[in-house]
Amino acid sequence: MLVSAMHITAGIWVNDNEQGILADAMEFLEELAPFKSDYRHHRTGEDNGDAHLKNLLIHHQVIIPITKGEMDFGPWQTIFYAEFDGRRRKRVVVKIMGE
Amino acid sequence: MLVSAMHITAGIWVNDNEQGILADAMEFLEELAPFKSDYRHHRTGEDNGDAHLKNLLIHHQVIIPITKGEMDFGPWQTIFYAEFDGRRRKRVVVKIMGE
Amino acid sequence: MLVSAMHITAGIWVNDNEQGILADAMEFLEELAPFKSDYRHHRTGEDNGDAHLKNLLIHHQVIIPITKGEMDFGPWQTIFYAEFDGRRRKRVVVKIMGE
Repeated sequence: MLVSAMHITAGIWVNDNEQGILADAMEFLEELAPFKSDYRHHRTGEDNGDAHLKNLLIHHQVIIPITKGEMDFGPWQTIFYAEFDGRRRKRVVVKIMGE
Repeated sequence: MLVSAMHITAGIWVNDNEQGILADAMEFLEELAPFKSDYRHHRTGEDNGDAHLKNLLIHHQVIIPITKGEMDFGPWQTIFYAEFDGRRRKRVVVKIMGE
Repeated sequence: MLVSAMHITAGIWVNDNEQGILADAMEFLEELAPFKSDYRHHRTGEDNGDAHLKNLLIHHQVIIPITKGEMDFGPWQTIFYAEFDGRRRKRVVVKIMGE
C-alpha cells in the first residue's frame, strides 16, 4: 500500500505514536532544517523554505506491506503525516498494489 | 520488490558494500542524531531516542525493481539493514509486487 | 510508478521545480554531508564519500501514484534526479506496477 502526500511541504513516515518521539522528531527536523528568513526560495515571496527541506529529509511517501488484508506492521509502527508549512489542507493518495 | 523492516528503530537502504562507506555512514548518522540522555522519549523509560531519529532519516524500507526475476541493481548497489537500537531481533517483510 | 536510480551516489526526489529551492537544497545537503577529504571511503582511492552520504539522506527512488494513466501529482510536484558525484552517466529504472 502506497501512502503519498500531495504537498511538497509535507512528510509521511512510520514510527511509534509516542508523544516524546514526536516532539523529539520535530525538534530534530527544526535543528537540521530551521525556519529562517534567508532561503533563496523566499525571493519568490514564499516563506516556507524550511518546509521544503524538511520534506526532502522525510519524503512524501511510505509503502506499507499488506498480507491477507492487514497491514504488516511491526510493534508500534504507525503512519504519520506532517504538514511542515502549517497552513495547507492535507491531501494524500493511497493506492493498494498487487493482487 | 519491497523490503520493509518491522522495527521503528531500524533502517533499510541501498548503497555500496564497502567498509569505509559503512563506517562513514554510521559516524554521519551519529553526528546528525546522537545517542544522548535527554530525548523526551526517554521519559517513557526507553533510552533509544537516537535510534528513532536515525530511522526517520534512513527510513524502514526500499523498493527494488525486478526485471525477469533479477534485481535491477546498478553497479555496487546492495541492500543494508541496520538496527540502531542494537538489541532487537531483526525482522523484515519482503513482498514481490507485479506480475 | 517506481523511479529508481542505478547509482549509489545519486538521489531521486519529488519537490517544486523552483530554482531557489533547488539551490537551497543543494546547499543544505552540502552542509549536512560536506565534500571533504577524510572520509574512510577514500582509502579505496575514491573521493566521493560525501556523495554516498547525500544519497543516504535523499535515497535513490520515489514511487509515484498513477490514476487512469496520469501521475497523481499534487501542485508543483516534480521528479528530480541529482548525481552527487558529478561525473557519472545518469541511469534510472522506471517500472509501472499494478493493473
